[in-house]
Amino acid sequence: MSAATTRPKVLVIGCGFGGLEAVRALSKADIEITLVDRTNHHLFQPLLYQVATAGLSAPAVSAPIRHTLRREMKRGNLTILQAEVTAIDAAAHQVTLDGHEALAYDHLIVAAGATHSYFGHDDWARHAPGLKTLSDALAIRARVIGAFERAERCTDASQRGPWMTFVVIGAGPTGVEMAGTMSEIALHTLPMEFRRIDSTHARIVLLEGSDRVLGSFVPKLSAKAREQLKKLGVEVCTGCKVSAIDADGVSYETRDGDTSTTHRLPSKTVIWAAGVAGSPLGKAIAASAGAALDRAGRVVVEPDLSLPGHPEISVIGDLAAAKSYGAGEPTPVPGVSPAAKQMGRTAAANLMRRLRGEATNPFRYIDYGNLATVGRKAAVVDLSVPLIGAIRFSGFFAWLFWLFAHIYFLIGFRNRLTVMIDWAWAYWTYERNARVVAEPRV
Amino acid sequence: MSAATTRPKVLVIGCGFGGLEAVRALSKADIEITLVDRTNHHLFQPLLYQVATAGLSAPAVSAPIRHTLRREMKRGNLTILQAEVTAIDAAAHQVTLDGHEALAYDHLIVAAGATHSYFGHDDWARHAPGLKTLSDALAIRARVIGAFERAERCTDASQRGPWMTFVVIGAGPTGVEMAGTMSEIALHTLPMEFRRIDSTHARIVLLEGSDRVLGSFVPKLSAKAREQLKKLGVEVCTGCKVSAIDADGVSYETRDGDTSTTHRLPSKTVIWAAGVAGSPLGKAIAASAGAALDRAGRVVVEPDLSLPGHPEISVIGDLAAAKSYGAGEPTPVPGVSPAAKQMGRTAAANLMRRLRGEATNPFRYIDYGNLATVGRKAAVVDLSVPLIGAIRFSGFFAWLFWLFAHIYFLIGFRNRLTVMIDWAWAYWTYERNARVVAEPRV
Repeated sequence: MSAATTRPKVLVIGCGFGGLEAVRALSKADIEITLVDRTNHHLFQPLLYQVATAGLSAPAVSAPIRHTLRREMKRGNLTILQAEVTAIDAAAHQVTLDGHEALAYDHLIVAAGATHSYFGHDDWARHAPGLKTLSDALAIRARVIGAFERAERCTDASQRGPWMTFVVIGAGPTGVEMAGTMSEIALHTLPMEFRRIDSTHARIVLLEGSDRVLGSFVPKLSAKAREQLKKLGVEVCTGCKVSAIDADGVSYETRDGDTSTTHRLPSKTVIWAAGVAGSPLGKAIAASAGAALDRAGRVVVEPDLSLPGHPEISVIGDLAAAKSYGAGEPTPVPGVSPAAKQMGRTAAANLMRRLRGEATNPFRYIDYGNLATVGRKAAVVDLSVPLIGAIRFSGFFAWLFWLFAHIYFLIGFRNRLTVMIDWAWAYWTYERNARVVAEPRV
Repeated sequence: MSAATTRPKVLVIGCGFGGLEAVRALSKADIEITLVDRTNHHLFQPLLYQVATAGLSAPAVSAPIRHTLRREMKRGNLTILQAEVTAIDAAAHQVTLDGHEALAYDHLIVAAGATHSYFGHDDWARHAPGLKTLSDALAIRARVIGAFERAERCTDASQRGPWMTFVVIGAGPTGVEMAGTMSEIALHTLPMEFRRIDSTHARIVLLEGSDRVLGSFVPKLSAKAREQLKKLGVEVCTGCKVSAIDADGVSYETRDGDTSTTHRLPSKTVIWAAGVAGSPLGKAIAASAGAALDRAGRVVVEPDLSLPGHPEISVIGDLAAAKSYGAGEPTPVPGVSPAAKQMGRTAAANLMRRLRGEATNPFRYIDYGNLATVGRKAAVVDLSVPLIGAIRFSGFFAWLFWLFAHIYFLIGFRNRLTVMIDWAWAYWTYERNARVVAEPRV
């Protein structure tokens, strides 16, 4: 038997923030690592909305996994496979790739991420695409840009309304970013480019079920963000419960005391930024390893991120319903990229401890704060600074802070440079550089 | 009746090099112009192979039509519609958009371009995609990058051959560029990034029916290009007639005197760069206006680019079988972008002359020369310089010349900047910046 086959076989599923960080942390160890991802790229999801709104090209926010991990590849213990994991057999310690190929593991780290949740209304997906993958982003870009084109095509002005109405459902960071940027496009990028329509008359409506935007921020910053959205011309409707979405628009209910009223918003472009659910792989794990899922389909993990009864399996990132074990009571870990990265490092460290026969450590999430951008020169920042405490600000400086933080964390120097140039250009000219839509394949 | 409705209505179909130039030339006149294109962008086709080979992003080689024509839009006589022209009624002076909307014209300029021709074997299209649109380029990128991924997936080394064999059919400029760049990827970009395969063992085969590559160049430059391709590791096979293409490879025949031999090349990635045919709109025009088509489906036009018997219709660019009326005998006009631009200007000028009741001028193609790149630091240049004559060179300086000529002609300053940065980066690092493939939509 060769050395390679006697080394422990570690399988990592998914190359998002969590999986990438786990592989990096593990690559120096004397183990055999296999990384499996459905795509060939690591996606910088925090900037995906820029692809959807034609500000950046797809390659600007994504990096080939093989290139990102080229240094780790040189150590000779990493295999990267582009494949979809279609089944997990926890008892046999193996997974199935693309429905037919078995792959055995000794240790498994599942970082398969999240997908959209339409709260049981899967038929809404067709009319209100969500934003999780590059394809999602390119499809939304085609819809948004195409809607203005369709409005220009209408020779009867009365038919233009639904094409000129853009509805974003869900006012979390993605929804707020989408709405703010779409308003920027309508007000600043497109004017003068059409003959029959006035793009500044476009309606951008942001529907939110709860009573404020950016619910994960403190109420004061939520109020600031709402103010900034209003300045950008976005109609913000909170306390709106969506009851139907079809090809021609959205129906939603508002409540005043005991009375609920149904409203109808005719729109040809509806974007879903409301619900997030764990990857379907969560269900496969739950079924095979006997793990529990929370309401959002995320896998409930032990304090050390492993599965109950299956210490050889860890679940991390957006697919994990994890808790942070700090000084006080355990607190739920939010579905953000810094948390995924930290879980990746903890899972890798615990795996190494287990191989050495040591006890594992519980996960502790270190929250450095929360950022969200609203649009040009508008953002909210809520930082947790050790020893000092919370620092909160909004407006232009928050936007600059957001900008540099995102460019700094973008993977790959080259991407950073392109993104900076694209943004500097967009800032001065209001032009958006990726405003092209590939024709549908015949 | 308003002024707008009494002005002559000019309809331009297609916003490639020819249509764009025609609209620009016409926009200052007191006429009403409508430009119709199927897509929302003008495509810089000479660099499309860079999108297919992951060197550039789609937005880097294309510009939104509305943005490109924003100055012309300000004159108030231009309407741009994203639509497909599905029928032409030359007798009624109207076209049909998307199968249902009638659009009337007084004058029509058809610049609908070309598409692939599989010489009657339309079933080959599925296995050997061609390169004409952004979607084509992104599909080819997915195949090329995906093939290396599939080879890495093979646990049985004997199955890797067809995934590691890349066949380009047709050794015109596009075929030569594709083959040269794919070899660069295999030799310089991908090595060290795989575990089970050695990308430098990939075979790149260029099949050509005639006896030399770059048939539109002088034989000496063809020989140089062939030499450069050989240095890059491309297997060049001339005198090869393709007889079959299926999901598993290509069959082709070679002839030695009276004996013809059939060869089989197992390959999972075949790219079609052999045949070009006029857009299907050519047939519609021929049927409606009684015009003739040449063997490649291009519309035979009068010396002034109009249709026989229909002076109000001009056909320009790759869809026109036009001749150049210079000093000597009329010569056929090649299907290159400078010719399309010149035809656009001539058609516009003749249209204005006709409106003034003047006689039209025959088209005269001014040939400034011919460039083709083979790969890194390799290109051939054949310039026609007035008074001096032909200047021909190849190698590194030809490549530099090619580089700056293409960047210079790229539409939109911003694109030029990004392309320059991408190329400078690629030159020093061998990395290709657009090596990401959007996951297929579920």
